[in-house]
Amino acid sequence: MIKASPLARPLPDLPAIAGVTPRVARARYKIWDRCDLTFVTLDEGAAVAGVLTQSRCPSPEVEWCRAALPLGRARALVVNAGNSNAFTGNRGRAAVEAIAARAAAHIGCEPSDIFIASTGVIGVPLPIDKAEAGLDAAFSAPPCSWREAADAIGTTDTFPKAVVTRAAIGDRTVTLVGIIKGSGMIAPDMATMLGFIFTDAAIEPAVLQQMLSAANTRSFSCITVDSDTSTSDTVLAFATGKAGNARLTSIEDAGADAFAAALSDLCLQLAQLVVRDGEGASKFIEIAVEGAESDASAHRIALSIANSPLVKTAIAGEDANWGRVVMAVGKAGEPAERDKLSIRFGDTQVAQGGLAVEGYDEAPVAAHLKGQEVEIGVDLGLGEGRATVWTCDLTHGYIQINADYRT
Amino acid sequence: MIKASPLARPLPDLPAIAGVTPRVARARYKIWDRCDLTFVTLDEGAAVAGVLTQSRCPSPEVEWCRAALPLGRARALVVNAGNSNAFTGNRGRAAVEAIAARAAAHIGCEPSDIFIASTGVIGVPLPIDKAEAGLDAAFSAPPCSWREAADAIGTTDTFPKAVVTRAAIGDRTVTLVGIIKGSGMIAPDMATMLGFIFTDAAIEPAVLQQMLSAANTRSFSCITVDSDTSTSDTVLAFATGKAGNARLTSIEDAGADAFAAALSDLCLQLAQLVVRDGEGASKFIEIAVEGAESDASAHRIALSIANSPLVKTAIAGEDANWGRVVMAVGKAGEPAERDKLSIRFGDTQVAQGGLAVEGYDEAPVAAHLKGQEVEIGVDLGLGEGRATVWTCDLTHGYIQINADYRT
Repeated sequence: MIKASPLARPLPDLPAIAGVTPRVARARYKIWDRCDLTFVTLDEGAAVAGVLTQSRCPSPEVEWCRAALPLGRARALVVNAGNSNAFTGNRGRAAVEAIAARAAAHIGCEPSDIFIASTGVIGVPLPIDKAEAGLDAAFSAPPCSWREAADAIGTTDTFPKAVVTRAAIGDRTVTLVGIIKGSGMIAPDMATMLGFIFTDAAIEPAVLQQMLSAANTRSFSCITVDSDTSTSDTVLAFATGKAGNARLTSIEDAGADAFAAALSDLCLQLAQLVVRDGEGASKFIEIAVEGAESDASAHRIALSIANSPLVKTAIAGEDANWGRVVMAVGKAGEPAERDKLSIRFGDTQVAQGGLAVEGYDEAPVAAHLKGQEVEIGVDLGLGEGRATVWTCDLTHGYIQINADYRT
Repeated sequence: MIKASPLARPLPDLPAIAGVTPRVARARYKIWDRCDLTFVTLDEGAAVAGVLTQSRCPSPEVEWCRAALPLGRARALVVNAGNSNAFTGNRGRAAVEAIAARAAAHIGCEPSDIFIASTGVIGVPLPIDKAEAGLDAAFSAPPCSWREAADAIGTTDTFPKAVVTRAAIGDRTVTLVGIIKGSGMIAPDMATMLGFIFTDAAIEPAVLQQMLSAANTRSFSCITVDSDTSTSDTVLAFATGKAGNARLTSIEDAGADAFAAALSDLCLQLAQLVVRDGEGASKFIEIAVEGAESDASAHRIALSIANSPLVKTAIAGEDANWGRVVMAVGKAGEPAERDKLSIRFGDTQVAQGGLAVEGYDEAPVAAHLKGQEVEIGVDLGLGEGRATVWTCDLTHGYIQINADYRT
């Protein structure tokens, strides 16, 4: 892996999840010597839920998962790194079917019990022979650590990303582990990147889906690196039921709140790790909008700021150019009134009521911008709508990485 | 001025327009020794039309023009460069009123006959004393050339931008000259940048407005540098009537078509010059979308491609990464079907029917990308909707310019 992002976070201690066995292998989808195929098997009885990209040009993997999710059950997850297999027509579909068939044969299950995700360059069919050989190698390999799996699903990622949370359900403690990859082409709309969550909780697939969808709107849907939405975004959650808790069959059940909160917290932490590994990122930026006409309006205004190249480059340059925040609010196409608008950087109010605050002192703002964590607050003064999104700055590193990605 | 954009175009020969007198002066809005105040006077009887930013946080100049435009008459244009005066509350409004009053006093007209535009940093009130002294100096200065005016309205622009077109109305030839500034914060929605058009044609303001609005949708609304829409975007057209043509009082009049075509051509050329001066630009990119469900849908898909940082950086790197075009189509939120999508780079079809063309040869595409003019064609295969937009690539130059703009 290349030099870790300055915003990287160390991997926490990651416990095994009962009923989940990760393995990795070298399929060599690119000319590299690293594990790039991840094969996670699940004991019989695991529930699954997922959120998938809303792109109109989704990968065949996304279509496969979309078709399999309603069945609610999973026996394995296969992740290919280095080739997204997107926009590859019938050959791409054939590759997905071949992977599902081979994995199912190893395990002794239905192909529809196999979930598949791929990430990498668009437009090159995934080589079926490499995928099959990789699957065979993985299946006969010893189980690996979460760290190895988190490394194996990465592409331009600069550090492995994983989170653990826990929740009490009755007298049992259930554990959730999530691994995620993503660095560029990050602007999840209804879903995002490749993220995989494993828990030993016993929970009905429909309930897990309801909780995952809710968590998604407050986490993956609230981050952006570069406003570009992938063709392959996938988040899947697998629950093995091995914790022995009273099975959650409704969000009204005792312990459901605690589990939903742990899942939501996990998703938010995973999403923020992706921003921390944003291509070229040197600053982690939180944008909090309040006083909008609705939460949805606040969300769109926050994303307008977060996706503005001029706001992102100003922060990269540690330049307290708050006028660009005004610009981004103005262009969002949402209700806003210039003369009711307030803006703060960190704890410092910079503009209020349509102009700079009286006696505005840039020194504390400049000091805030020198840090790695930047906070921008916007109050529209119109209503009760609020939203928070996270992004990173736009630096030479982003250009370097993306002007020369395939070569 | 800094090093000219590699995409710069030489200034054409620009004729005087009867009834129009440009002058420039040093108001010194920034610490620089250059003309930054432009004062263009118009003989009595000139008609005016305009299109203005749709930003919800417009500058007081934009509000002033919006209020004055319905009167349809103009005696002068004042342009300040180096300070946009946007988001400056009452002090900004006071500056605009002071400029209008001073200019009107010099000319002997109503303040509402004065049109004002300012460009530069947001959030700093325009110093009234400098503006007034600059106006006085300009009024007593000799008339200047169009080139001097085109230079004086610029900020981060790297070359002066102007276009001339002509049209026959009956037995008279009318002339149109346009000057424009703009380089970053360019993503016109309904209007754009600062652009000023002068013609000796005799035409009713309402007809001029109708033609300008129509031309705008096919020119300024079809360019983007960085997806960021300014608080100050303004295009004004002034018609002095000195050409002696039969006054155009309707778009049905003889010669109206020719004039509208010349105006439209002028606007398109001006808009493309702004893209050619896009901050950090090294490639001029045309994106033509056809086969969409509607023209509006094609326009949104074209802008999704044109604003994609990943598409723009790939072109900067001369990388034939057409998968990113697929991604940008997919994320546009418009009707699209992956398996009907075709993509070409220059004259080379790269993808068709949902995958790369059989025997795809990257060599001609790579050769096309080495040039300064890049063409991307997308056919959605759904309907008759089409649109073309123009943009530039995203390079280190953009980051350099914008991470350090105010210092």
